Amino acid sequence: MREAFPNIKKIKYEGADSRNPLAFKHYNADELVEGKPMKDHLRFACSYWHTMRGNGQEIFGFPTMLRPWEDWSTSIEMALKRVEVFFEFLEKVGIDYYCFHDRDVSPEGATLKESHQNFDIIAAELKKFQDATGKKLLWGTAQLFMHPRYMHGAGTSPNVEVFAFAAAQVKKAMEVTHELGGEGYVFWGGREGYQSLLNTDLKRELDHLAQFLKMAADYKREIGFTGQLMIEPKAKEPMKHQYDTDAATTLNFLRQYDLLKDYSLNLETNHAQLAGHTMQHDMEVAIAADALGSIDANMGDWQLGWDTDQFPTDLYITTHTMLGVLKMGGFTQGGLNFDSKVRRESFEPEDLFHAHIAGMDTFARGLKIAAKIRKDGRIAEFVKDRYSSWDGELGEKIERGEMNFRELEEIALEMGEVHTYKSGRQEYLETIFNESI
Amino acid sequence: MREAFPNIKKIKYEGADSRNPLAFKHYNADELVEGKPMKDHLRFACSYWHTMRGNGQEIFGFPTMLRPWEDWSTSIEMALKRVEVFFEFLEKVGIDYYCFHDRDVSPEGATLKESHQNFDIIAAELKKFQDATGKKLLWGTAQLFMHPRYMHGAGTSPNVEVFAFAAAQVKKAMEVTHELGGEGYVFWGGREGYQSLLNTDLKRELDHLAQFLKMAADYKREIGFTGQLMIEPKAKEPMKHQYDTDAATTLNFLRQYDLLKDYSLNLETNHAQLAGHTMQHDMEVAIAADALGSIDANMGDWQLGWDTDQFPTDLYITTHTMLGVLKMGGFTQGGLNFDSKVRRESFEPEDLFHAHIAGMDTFARGLKIAAKIRKDGRIAEFVKDRYSSWDGELGEKIERGEMNFRELEEIALEMGEVHTYKSGRQEYLETIFNESI
Amino acid sequence: MREAFPNIKKIKYEGADSRNPLAFKHYNADELVEGKPMKDHLRFACSYWHTMRGNGQEIFGFPTMLRPWEDWSTSIEMALKRVEVFFEFLEKVGIDYYCFHDRDVSPEGATLKESHQNFDIIAAELKKFQDATGKKLLWGTAQLFMHPRYMHGAGTSPNVEVFAFAAAQVKKAMEVTHELGGEGYVFWGGREGYQSLLNTDLKRELDHLAQFLKMAADYKREIGFTGQLMIEPKAKEPMKHQYDTDAATTLNFLRQYDLLKDYSLNLETNHAQLAGHTMQHDMEVAIAADALGSIDANMGDWQLGWDTDQFPTDLYITTHTMLGVLKMGGFTQGGLNFDSKVRRESFEPEDLFHAHIAGMDTFARGLKIAAKIRKDGRIAEFVKDRYSSWDGELGEKIERGEMNFRELEEIALEMGEVHTYKSGRQEYLETIFNESI
Amino acid sequence: MREAFPNIKKIKYEGADSRNPLAFKHYNADELVEGKPMKDHLRFACSYWHTMRGNGQEIFGFPTMLRPWEDWSTSIEMALKRVEVFFEFLEKVGIDYYCFHDRDVSPEGATLKESHQNFDIIAAELKKFQDATGKKLLWGTAQLFMHPRYMHGAGTSPNVEVFAFAAAQVKKAMEVTHELGGEGYVFWGGREGYQSLLNTDLKRELDHLAQFLKMAADYKREIGFTGQLMIEPKAKEPMKHQYDTDAATTLNFLRQYDLLKDYSLNLETNHAQLAGHTMQHDMEVAIAADALGSIDANMGDWQLGWDTDQFPTDLYITTHTMLGVLKMGGFTQGGLNFDSKVRRESFEPEDLFHAHIAGMDTFARGLKIAAKIRKDGRIAEFVKDRYSSWDGELGEKIERGEMNFRELEEIALEMGEVHTYKSGRQEYLETIFNESI
Repeated sequence: MREAFPNIKKIKYEGADSRNPLAFKHYNADELVEGKPMKDHLRFACSYWHTMRGNGQEIFGFPTMLRPWEDWSTSIEMALKRVEVFFEFLEKVGIDYYCFHDRDVSPEGATLKESHQNFDIIAAELKKFQDATGKKLLWGTAQLFMHPRYMHGAGTSPNVEVFAFAAAQVKKAMEVTHELGGEGYVFWGGREGYQSLLNTDLKRELDHLAQFLKMAADYKREIGFTGQLMIEPKAKEPMKHQYDTDAATTLNFLRQYDLLKDYSLNLETNHAQLAGHTMQHDMEVAIAADALGSIDANMGDWQLGWDTDQFPTDLYITTHTMLGVLKMGGFTQGGLNFDSKVRRESFEPEDLFHAHIAGMDTFARGLKIAAKIRKDGRIAEFVKDRYSSWDGELGEKIERGEMNFRELEEIALEMGEVHTYKSGRQEYLETIFNESI
Repeated sequence: MREAFPNIKKIKYEGADSRNPLAFKHYNADELVEGKPMKDHLRFACSYWHTMRGNGQEIFGFPTMLRPWEDWSTSIEMALKRVEVFFEFLEKVGIDYYCFHDRDVSPEGATLKESHQNFDIIAAELKKFQDATGKKLLWGTAQLFMHPRYMHGAGTSPNVEVFAFAAAQVKKAMEVTHELGGEGYVFWGGREGYQSLLNTDLKRELDHLAQFLKMAADYKREIGFTGQLMIEPKAKEPMKHQYDTDAATTLNFLRQYDLLKDYSLNLETNHAQLAGHTMQHDMEVAIAADALGSIDANMGDWQLGWDTDQFPTDLYITTHTMLGVLKMGGFTQGGLNFDSKVRRESFEPEDLFHAHIAGMDTFARGLKIAAKIRKDGRIAEFVKDRYSSWDGELGEKIERGEMNFRELEEIALEMGEVHTYKSGRQEYLETIFNESI
Repeated sequence: MREAFPNIKKIKYEGADSRNPLAFKHYNADELVEGKPMKDHLRFACSYWHTMRGNGQEIFGFPTMLRPWEDWSTSIEMALKRVEVFFEFLEKVGIDYYCFHDRDVSPEGATLKESHQNFDIIAAELKKFQDATGKKLLWGTAQLFMHPRYMHGAGTSPNVEVFAFAAAQVKKAMEVTHELGGEGYVFWGGREGYQSLLNTDLKRELDHLAQFLKMAADYKREIGFTGQLMIEPKAKEPMKHQYDTDAATTLNFLRQYDLLKDYSLNLETNHAQLAGHTMQHDMEVAIAADALGSIDANMGDWQLGWDTDQFPTDLYITTHTMLGVLKMGGFTQGGLNFDSKVRRESFEPEDLFHAHIAGMDTFARGLKIAAKIRKDGRIAEFVKDRYSSWDGELGEKIERGEMNFRELEEIALEMGEVHTYKSGRQEYLETIFNESI
Repeated sequence: MREAFPNIKKIKYEGADSRNPLAFKHYNADELVEGKPMKDHLRFACSYWHTMRGNGQEIFGFPTMLRPWEDWSTSIEMALKRVEVFFEFLEKVGIDYYCFHDRDVSPEGATLKESHQNFDIIAAELKKFQDATGKKLLWGTAQLFMHPRYMHGAGTSPNVEVFAFAAAQVKKAMEVTHELGGEGYVFWGGREGYQSLLNTDLKRELDHLAQFLKMAADYKREIGFTGQLMIEPKAKEPMKHQYDTDAATTLNFLRQYDLLKDYSLNLETNHAQLAGHTMQHDMEVAIAADALGSIDANMGDWQLGWDTDQFPTDLYITTHTMLGVLKMGGFTQGGLNFDSKVRRESFEPEDLFHAHIAGMDTFARGLKIAAKIRKDGRIAEFVKDRYSSWDGELGEKIERGEMNFRELEEIALEMGEVHTYKSGRQEYLETIFNESI
């Protein structure tokens, strides 16, 4: 095949002063930050669905994307051709990992068997290209939301046949992920929720979902898959309400059904926001539970109530994200998957490069700013000092669970009143933060 | 003391055709619904803070409320007089329960000891009036958010002295609640959260909060208090983010720290909404975890991003709430506490009656509509039928955990495709719902 | 052609006690309310796009709708067949009016000329069925948002060729609307806005839009079209921001460019909500400017940030809407167009009936409740009395513009302070409102 | 009086490398940007209400602020002392302008006359300090929202006496503003709106408000005040809905009542956001109408639904704001008023300095970045090029109003289809933007 992007060469790092639109100004893969190459901190992944299958269609608009290699069919030939284009893109944009849903790499067949067969053909092709290029699979997943059979849910469907069908689809997707050396497998429950509580048995649906995930964890062990299993929370859209609403809600579910030992979280910036949180918040919650597996890197629009999946170009968001990643000691099997799509109006192939460069450069800068803030140390020191009263004898006893209300009341009566307060200094801390940008 | 509401007599039930503004049109305390008197279904409580201490002040406005009995001081005399007025109000409006914070019934002293003493004086007066009138305490709580010492948190304060002080305050409030025969004790963590993650150690704060609640549960057992301990979730306001965000988040916290055996939830309609949920949703989540203790009955404004604490006058909200209460078999130690305040512009004493009548009548109607929907049975039957495929052999085996992915894949391959779907019929179900209004 | 809905007969009014799902319980077309038949108050219209072209597709899901008559093609034959089905539906559901976009009744051709020809064929068919059935066109419009050519706007496109193309499309749609006796023509500017201000010349775009609308008004006069021209506001979606944000914003635009004499507003419930308003509010704003032309009747979900276009089943919304309609003296050329779609999960043809019945019955009840509230008169009287101080000499002088600051200061100095306030009595008024439900 | 801030010296510019918390890193008053000193671009003003009267109180919390000079009384002596402290603060923080409400500088008296007298005393003191220091009044205003008499509105009160009283208060505030050489006078209608439409005559209230503003404009002319009159929009809070919702809504009102010749807009970042807009958007709308008078500089929290009035520390916000200001050619009588308050937890006097420094430095950087983006020119050029098709003959004829639908249809039929589209390149433009940060 001729090149899909004939006029675009491999994107290079040219430094902050370059005015070349098709060059990195900040992402320098092998540059060391805190002693580790940027690429190992960031572990960028490209999402197959947005990059290869995004066509610009939305509820009020027909497709817009120009993709010269596409016939927009669901043929196996087209599916194979897309693999080649995708690896050319990965190579040129300099991203080492990718993520996919079963159905965006390979077409759904008339029967499950046919779908499995299609998937095998494409999986072999992906394997071939992985081997040839050294690119790797960050995680795989099954698409359990587009097909009408899943309209009422997959693992939470009121129809037991749908549950069985979904199980079979996930089984296969796990197998292919395993074969391709995937470092993780993700469950995003886009249909696991409800449109109306009037027709929903919420408790029974959650019980079913737990059984589903238990079987998945069992199957992982059975086939010796060593990647991490992850749940990706989202509060709403497409459903009115989804069960894996946010980090805390998902952790509650995992704890309730004793699944926390088998699952961690794949957090997405735009999803955190739709749940009413900052990404920072949901990352803190996940990190505090030692359950942050990976990140879907994008950004939303604060004034829009749906998933805009924009490429991350806000330095505050990328810096806060990387502060969290550095704090937890970096990714092990996770990474930064660009679950981001070019705007419908950015319809040229070239825009795929502009957009990924935008995201990679903004994250590279976020990483460098985060490292600078950590090196500066003033914010961390402020926080440490803020809690220093807890480092004394009383604090330690409370933290060890060795005090009770009677003893604390005696101390409080003795004090009479608390006399020392410290300012929270939020404005000052925001200034220090800005100084590193 | 002369009457506080001299022109208002005890509010009576006069039926739907009455045009008397100071009469119930629907709340008929002893009328049986599903075989139980309305008052036992609803267990209304009046909140001392809004009814006696609400003055109409807000961030852009000075107090407006006319309260002829008030000198607006923090004297013990005034605090005692308020008790008398409050019980006159309870008597006239026909509400059997009430709820309070320590500091809205009795003034804060210069020292903790003085505050305790003040509280004892008022507690004795409350006891006296309870005995004289038969009114009861639904639940008590400690106000751990107004005083500057709690600006950074109480159980989550970075200052260990504040933690000790808060513990002493809660200990006392639990004791008084116990003495007054309270059926519950509530923790609303208005300051247990953060304004900025830049100065916050989220994990350490959560650990401290868990220790705090553990001590409270221990102390409950120690003093033999048999009321239920409850957490009241709220997502935000006053802080940017509060830890007890919503039902699921709070359950996650309780599970993580092994506190679920000791705590249930006190859910508030307006708080559920600020967290991005319907009250229905949060009730379903709590009921599914067998953890719905009590309800703060009010309503918010869907277009305002703060806690408006309006009296509940929306029949859809009250009906859905009562459907949930009936579904769980009714309250045991919980009830419907009107955590509702008259609008700042409804500043006359008479408005307190209009507002409570509005809330009580709307809930009485909600109860009757809910009972009608249950008797009608069409919605419940639809839901049962919707999941009927799960009642077969396959469904039962899955629910019992006796199936695995291999077996399900075989079944799915056999099927080839799922062929039967049922419509969700949302619009039809909404029509049936309306038919009972 | 055989019937599209063979098992469904014409929907009849059977009264509130009927349990027949396919009957009206409240909508009784000829029943008089305030001396006028219900059908003339409500003037229901059915939207061709949702009813005939809605397929259940959304961003995360493939089509779901079962439509036995459909081959889902864009052929003229299929387009003709849809007309027949549509009129069968109108007949059976008992709706007298309909609304359409050019492109949802007739397929886009390879050239504009071809599109015009297709449109003419379908227009003739629509005319034939109108004549045969007595059904009427409430309003027509051109679809200027689905086709990629309009991705950056139509009247506000940065490409002047697109502007010309859009003008030609609107010209034709106006002509067809005129031929079909349409009582109005609507402009919904789904693409007239921006995704990013970084690439947008807002002022120049608004100037172009004004020219566009000026030409449309000129053309209306030229062809003698006597229907009303209307703008339909929407704040966002599909774009980040649309220029016709809400009623007030659109009025500002119309005033600025001297277009208010030629245009009125077509308000939609769900759009008002996405702009942060209640429908009540936007109706008050439009009525105060004597500019409420027609209504798109639906409802949104307060917790979802996109246009859910649900059938209106909330009695508060329909009652408030009809209070507004009665207040302005009823529709002249406008009506209640169900810009509402069945949920994606309500995929059976039968659901189209359930949904329209739901909407029609809820509006019929809203009409009756509104009339009851008006007859009761207590709310209107309260409002009148609330402003009664303005009916005195001072108020009248101010209202006539005959007072100045000096004179008012003298009066105020004399008063010293305002001594009389009246309670707003919101809770009481909400109770009265509920009494009529 | 001894200094209020004895340990703080005049804040100096020390450059980006300084680690002195009490120094400017970017704001260098006399440094030229686009040929004009920074201070003349930015024209910072300090708001008296937040800086001198903010006590940290909120709906769930008592005051927290430590202000050693305060006795928290409403005495004239205290009011006089505050003036001295304020000018010490202005001097030390290096801000040349200030803004006030009548009632936050001088106490309300028992009668209007007394209030006037108090105000005169304080005005004289302000004058004295202005003369001594060279500080200037950016704008004055009357506080028409805190006092209970205004609970239902001031210019829109249902009580004509309240209207008269408000007029008298505004008259006096305009006089004092005039005496103090104020460059503007602002109307923020915090109570001009409604809590419930059930008790509101919206049309009559708007008519009254227009009369009020007309009299104000007349009085301005009468006394020869040459400052600009401005309306400050806010969508909600304290009321459910305020009439001056956003820029476009306010312009609509001004046009409707022929007041646009006399009034411009004072836009606030946080208010724009509460209305569902970016500040950028509302600035574009105001600038397009040549009606942007001045700016209230702060920022909100995207996830909180109330006015948080935070100091602006987001470089994107300040850069976009300054791009707008530079685009309109800079302020004439307007400026950047910090309508920003220190967090309740930043309670030390020192935090007032940290916060203002944060805001000033972030705006100084925003100004420099904006100038850099303009100098770079790539974004402006992209926009110009994007609309270049309009610069041809056809575009010019349309813009001049010389084309009609018939002529455009001919052109479109000739074209057949639009064949050229250009990508919107949003991601690329965002990258260019970031390059200047």
